Amino acid sequence: MNNSPLQASLAYAHDHVESFIEQYKALLRIPSIGADPAYRDDVRRAAEWIVAEMERLGIENAQILETKGQPAVYGDWLHAGRDAPTVLLYAHYDVQPVDPLDLWITPPFAPDLREGKLFARGVIDDKSGVFVHLKAFESVMSANGRLPVNVKFIFEGEEESGSPTMEAFIEAHSALLAADVAVISDGGSSDDTPRMMASVRGIVTAEVNIHGPARDLHSGSFGGVVHNPTHMVGKIVGSLHDDEGRIQIPGFYDEVVPVSDAQQALIKANEANAIAQAREETGLETFWGVPDYTFGERATARPTCDVNGIYGGYQGRGAKTVLPAEAGFKVSMRLVDNQDPTDIAKKFTAFVSSFACDTLQLDVEVLSSSWPAETLISGPIARAVIEAYTTTWGKAPRMERGGGSVPIIGMFQHVLGIPVVSMGLAQGSNAHAPNEFYDLAYFGPNVDTAIHFLFNMAC
Amino acid sequence: MNNSPLQASLAYAHDHVESFIEQYKALLRIPSIGADPAYRDDVRRAAEWIVAEMERLGIENAQILETKGQPAVYGDWLHAGRDAPTVLLYAHYDVQPVDPLDLWITPPFAPDLREGKLFARGVIDDKSGVFVHLKAFESVMSANGRLPVNVKFIFEGEEESGSPTMEAFIEAHSALLAADVAVISDGGSSDDTPRMMASVRGIVTAEVNIHGPARDLHSGSFGGVVHNPTHMVGKIVGSLHDDEGRIQIPGFYDEVVPVSDAQQALIKANEANAIAQAREETGLETFWGVPDYTFGERATARPTCDVNGIYGGYQGRGAKTVLPAEAGFKVSMRLVDNQDPTDIAKKFTAFVSSFACDTLQLDVEVLSSSWPAETLISGPIARAVIEAYTTTWGKAPRMERGGGSVPIIGMFQHVLGIPVVSMGLAQGSNAHAPNEFYDLAYFGPNVDTAIHFLFNMAC
Repeated sequence: MNNSPLQASLAYAHDHVESFIEQYKALLRIPSIGADPAYRDDVRRAAEWIVAEMERLGIENAQILETKGQPAVYGDWLHAGRDAPTVLLYAHYDVQPVDPLDLWITPPFAPDLREGKLFARGVIDDKSGVFVHLKAFESVMSANGRLPVNVKFIFEGEEESGSPTMEAFIEAHSALLAADVAVISDGGSSDDTPRMMASVRGIVTAEVNIHGPARDLHSGSFGGVVHNPTHMVGKIVGSLHDDEGRIQIPGFYDEVVPVSDAQQALIKANEANAIAQAREETGLETFWGVPDYTFGERATARPTCDVNGIYGGYQGRGAKTVLPAEAGFKVSMRLVDNQDPTDIAKKFTAFVSSFACDTLQLDVEVLSSSWPAETLISGPIARAVIEAYTTTWGKAPRMERGGGSVPIIGMFQHVLGIPVVSMGLAQGSNAHAPNEFYDLAYFGPNVDTAIHFLFNMAC
Repeated sequence: MNNSPLQASLAYAHDHVESFIEQYKALLRIPSIGADPAYRDDVRRAAEWIVAEMERLGIENAQILETKGQPAVYGDWLHAGRDAPTVLLYAHYDVQPVDPLDLWITPPFAPDLREGKLFARGVIDDKSGVFVHLKAFESVMSANGRLPVNVKFIFEGEEESGSPTMEAFIEAHSALLAADVAVISDGGSSDDTPRMMASVRGIVTAEVNIHGPARDLHSGSFGGVVHNPTHMVGKIVGSLHDDEGRIQIPGFYDEVVPVSDAQQALIKANEANAIAQAREETGLETFWGVPDYTFGERATARPTCDVNGIYGGYQGRGAKTVLPAEAGFKVSMRLVDNQDPTDIAKKFTAFVSSFACDTLQLDVEVLSSSWPAETLISGPIARAVIEAYTTTWGKAPRMERGGGSVPIIGMFQHVLGIPVVSMGLAQGSNAHAPNEFYDLAYFGPNVDTAIHFLFNMAC
C-alpha cells in the first residue's frame, strides 16, 4: 500500500468534516420511518436523496432497486482492477418510530446540536452507516480519482421492520451483489472505544390481536357476562415467563446450543463493561433475568421474549368504564444458535392458540423473523477492520457479542454465501428511544476508519 | 288533580317538540367530557348554557355551584305551597370520552339526525335527563304559570368520572338540596318499553402504573436483563380471574350478600329480555362468566373486575422492538350489596402490592368509588313514576336491576337521608361507545312522562 493516497484521503476528510456534518443534517431531516405506512413517501425521498448524492460523488449505477417493501439503494465503483477485492458496504437508511414524542427535547427530525452532540432520530441507527461510507468514498475519490478496492453499496429501507422482503431481494440480485465480503455498518459504540459485533441474535416479531364484542361496551352493563379481551391479553402475557423469567412457550429452548469457548471468552471479557454501560443507559441499579446465567449470557447468548407493546381500551387520563372490543400485544423474541426462527414462530403461535376459547377470537400474525448469526472476529478481513480502528483511535476495538438482530447478516451468509464483518461507524446513544444522539467528537474518526478499511483491504 | 293544567302542559309540549329537538342540539354540540382536563372549559360552558336556559324559563336561583371538581348546576321553583311535596330532579350534563373516534360515523359533537335517530355523544347519557326535565318544566310553567309541586334541579358535571367530589358537595349544601325524594334521570331504555332502575352496582375504579427503566430501551440490547413492565401488567391482569372468571383478589367476595326475594324475582323476570338485548348490543352469541350464576345474576347481582384499558410500549402499526419504560392498566370493579368500596379498594391495592419486586416500581391509584344501592320499586313515589310511564306509553315500565353505577344514589340516600326513585328519560343505544343515539320517536313521550310525574306527585 502506498501511503500517500491514504494520507491525501484523510486530509480531504479532515478538511471537510464540518461541511460533512452540515450535509448530514439534510438526510436526518427526512423522516424515513420504514415501519409506518404514513411515512412511505418520506422513505422513498430518503432513498432518492442517497441516489442523488451517489451520482454527485461519481458512484456508478446509482439507483433505487425496488423490493416488495421499501426501496433499496445500490451503487458501485468497480475500477480497482481484477485482482483487487470487492467489498459490499451495507447500512440502512430507515429509522425507528419516534414515540413517545413528548419525551424528545427537540423534534426528532429537526437535527439539533447541543454540547457537541447531534440529536436526531436515525443519527446513529443507521443513517450514520450510509453517510459515513459515502463520505469515505468522497474523500478517497476526490483525493486520488480512484479507490484501492472495488466497492458496492447496498442501503436498506426496512431494517427496522425486520427486513421482511430483503431475503427475496438478495436472491433476485445475487449476481449484482456478489462480493468477497459484506461489511455491516449498523450503529456503533456508546463510548470512546470503537466496537465490532461478534454475533447477533435472531428475531421473531409477532402481534396477537384479540377480539371480543362488536364494539366497546359499558363495563357496568356487561361486566360479568362479556369476556373482556384485555383479560386474555393478561392471561397470555402473564404466562410467557415464570416468576424468574424463564420463557414458558413449550419447546422454546429445545434447540439452544451453548456458545463456543472463543465467544464465551468475549462474554466474560465484556461482562463488567456491559453492566456499567447498561446502568448508564437504563438508569437501573438492579437487573433482571433467569438466575442460572450471567448478565452477559442473558444479554447475548440466551433467547428472550419481550412484549414491545400492549394495548386495549381507554388510554387517556382518568377513568373510562369501558369493556373494550379488542386488545392485543406485540412481541419480539430474540434467538440464539441454533434456534430456527420458523420453528420458534410456530411454537409461539401454538402457545397463543392454546388459550383459544369460544368467547374471544385470537389472531396471531408473525411480522418478521431472522436467523441468529456470528460474524468474523479473526482472519485477514477482520484484521483489516481491527487495524482501521486501531490506527485511527489508538486502541483496538472492543469485540462484542450483540443482543440485537441484524437480519441482513444471515441473508448475506446464507444467500450470497459470503463472510460478513461488522464495522460500526457511530458513537452515541438512545437508538430506538427518544433523544437519539451522535457524539460528534467521533464523527471524523469514523470517516477515517472507513477510509483506512478500504486501503487495508487492498493490501 | 285538575286535569286541564296537565292537558295544557302536554299540549304545549306537543306543539314544541320539533323546536325542543333543535334546541337540544345546541347543548349536544358542547363537548363536556368531564373526565378529560383538556375539556375543562367546555364542561363549564355546558353548565353556563344550562344556567342561561333555566333563567330563560323562569327557574329561580339558577346558578353554578362550585365543587372541588366540575361545576354543578342548581335551580329551583318553590311556590307550590307548603303542603306540596318537594322533588329533587337529578341528571348529569358531563359525557363519556369519545375514543375510538374513528368508529364514529359522524363526529360525536356534531349532532346528526339519521332515520329518526339523533347521533351525538351524551344524547342519551345524560344530557337527555337535563334537557327533558327542563322542557317538562317549560311546558307546565308556560301553560299554567305555576307547577303542582316544588322542584329543585341538581345537574352534575362529573358523573362519568365517578362523582369524586359530589359527596362533599352534597354535605356542604344539604339544606339547599333537602327534598322529599330525589329523582334520578340517568339514561333510559334501548327499546320501546320505558325502564326504571331497581338497583345499581357500586364501583371502585383504579389505575396501576408500573415503571421500569428510565427510558424506552432496545429489546435486543436489554431483553433478558431488564425487567419489562408489560410483563408485570400481564402477571397482574392475568391473575385477576381464574379460568372461569372468579375474581382472585383475596377477600373480594367476603361481604357479598344474596339479593332479596323481590329483587331476585326481578332478575328472573328480565332474564330472557336481558340476554336478547345483550345479543343485540354486543354482537355476541356466547356470553361469559362464572358458571355458578345466571346471566341476570352475573350482570347485576355479582361483583366484577374489568380492565378498562391496558397500555405500554409501541401502539402503532408494524413492529417496534422496544422494551418499554412503563406500562399499566385501568380497572373498574362493580360492587353489590353488602360490599364496601373502601374495603374493596384496600383489597385491590393489597393484591397489586403482592406482586412487588425489586426490579419494577408498582403504583396503585384509586380513582373513584361508590356504594351499591337499591331504589324505590313500590309505594306512592314509585307509583307516581310508574303511572307517569303507563299513562304515556300505554304500558308499565320494565323494572330492572342495573349493572352500572350511579354514585349519586348512595350519596342522596346516605347524606340527605331521602329516598331515591329512578326515572329514565331517553330511548337509544351506544352509551359509552361510538355512535351513541337517541331514538327521537320517543323524545316527546319522555317529556310527557316527566310532566305526568310532576302532576302525579301532587295528588
